[in-house]
Amino acid sequence: MVGIGPGNVSNMTAHAVAVISLCDVVCGYDKYVKLLGDMTEGKQVVTSGMRGEKDRCLEAIRLAGAGHSVAVVSSGDAGVYGMAGLIYELITDLDIPIEIVPGITAATSGAALLGAPLMNDFGVISLSDQLTPWETIEKRLYALAAADMVVVLYNPMSHHRPDTLKRACDILLKEKPENTLCGWVRNIGREGQEAHITTLGKLRDAKLDMLCTVFAGASDTKLIGEKMVTSRGYTIAT
Amino acid sequence: MVGIGPGNVSNMTAHAVAVISLCDVVCGYDKYVKLLGDMTEGKQVVTSGMRGEKDRCLEAIRLAGAGHSVAVVSSGDAGVYGMAGLIYELITDLDIPIEIVPGITAATSGAALLGAPLMNDFGVISLSDQLTPWETIEKRLYALAAADMVVVLYNPMSHHRPDTLKRACDILLKEKPENTLCGWVRNIGREGQEAHITTLGKLRDAKLDMLCTVFAGASDTKLIGEKMVTSRGYTIAT
Repeated sequence: MVGIGPGNVSNMTAHAVAVISLCDVVCGYDKYVKLLGDMTEGKQVVTSGMRGEKDRCLEAIRLAGAGHSVAVVSSGDAGVYGMAGLIYELITDLDIPIEIVPGITAATSGAALLGAPLMNDFGVISLSDQLTPWETIEKRLYALAAADMVVVLYNPMSHHRPDTLKRACDILLKEKPENTLCGWVRNIGREGQEAHITTLGKLRDAKLDMLCTVFAGASDTKLIGEKMVTSRGYTIAT
Repeated sequence: MVGIGPGNVSNMTAHAVAVISLCDVVCGYDKYVKLLGDMTEGKQVVTSGMRGEKDRCLEAIRLAGAGHSVAVVSSGDAGVYGMAGLIYELITDLDIPIEIVPGITAATSGAALLGAPLMNDFGVISLSDQLTPWETIEKRLYALAAADMVVVLYNPMSHHRPDTLKRACDILLKEKPENTLCGWVRNIGREGQEAHITTLGKLRDAKLDMLCTVFAGASDTKLIGEKMVTSRGYTIAT
């Protein structure tokens, strides 16, 4: 289970590169496997589109059970909304050895583009209600806002869910003021990379997609130059 | 500002390695700079112990202002309780170019050792009350527990704060049952690496230190084999 980071090979770890090169099968969502470029040359490649996750994982398990070394790749970190947990849930032969190879998740690669929004306590929430009921998502958004934590949103909206970001902002706005510093990034480390700073009031109307990651600040998040920075709390003499 | 990941060079990104090799000064907490081994050969090295963060950052800024290329290294990710935000807060000459190079933070490198505890929404909280008032930490712990989120604890306890983990568990136990699956890791990717699965009731009495990261599960976190796995919510046929 290999996390390949945000997308550019230079943000993969040496260990992730080594594990993929040692495996004879690479398995993953087709868009992510493409990001690996010639690293998959000479290997069996098992890909499928979005929502083919379960079948893909079952095929990976079958191939591993048949004696192949299989790299199941996820973008970001395999254990953060990735394939790692699904493999554990689906595998029945616990003698098949599994290694989780961590990768850089969008919370930190996105934060790096915006400045330093995650310098203090934060929460990570996916706005996809495919697998988590929306009421649970709302409850979690409210909890983070009421505790004045920085909030990172994965899967902020999609064609099928054009209003999830707006609805999430409305929950956050119950506890965070409209001028709360926010930011969003798109295509981290890939062609078309973007990073934008905004406010919570304006974020509500942003037109984003599944390739975006969103950051909503806390009361101690401020603009320094053009960067979004949450204070860690060190006393800074002025 | 370079995140060097959990400690072993194989878990650094190629970009982090390249940036350090291009810089003529490396600046960081002495223990972390040591992890870089011969990567600092031939470079000026500015180190200091724990709590020397501010002076170290000011020296890095001074050297950068004087024309040096300076790599300020943090373990894990530079933007997660690292040095990135502090540099932004201290810098006065906004013409000095800053790049944040993300690294693998302990939340995901630790999760990888335990299984897949972060497959659904989670929060990250530091239990160090050096820079955040304890009342704020308590409020955040309670919020995450009440919203049934997975909780990752950085800096769980130290010589100076022998009871912070116990006090944190007592807050979590207000909303999470005693048998909630938990895990902790020590020295990720370094000599003496450990990973342990336990319950919230038992975690309360664990003797940990600053080199540990703690994971408290949610209601959908379960033991699969010997691994801690939070369900993403896919329907698994039985």
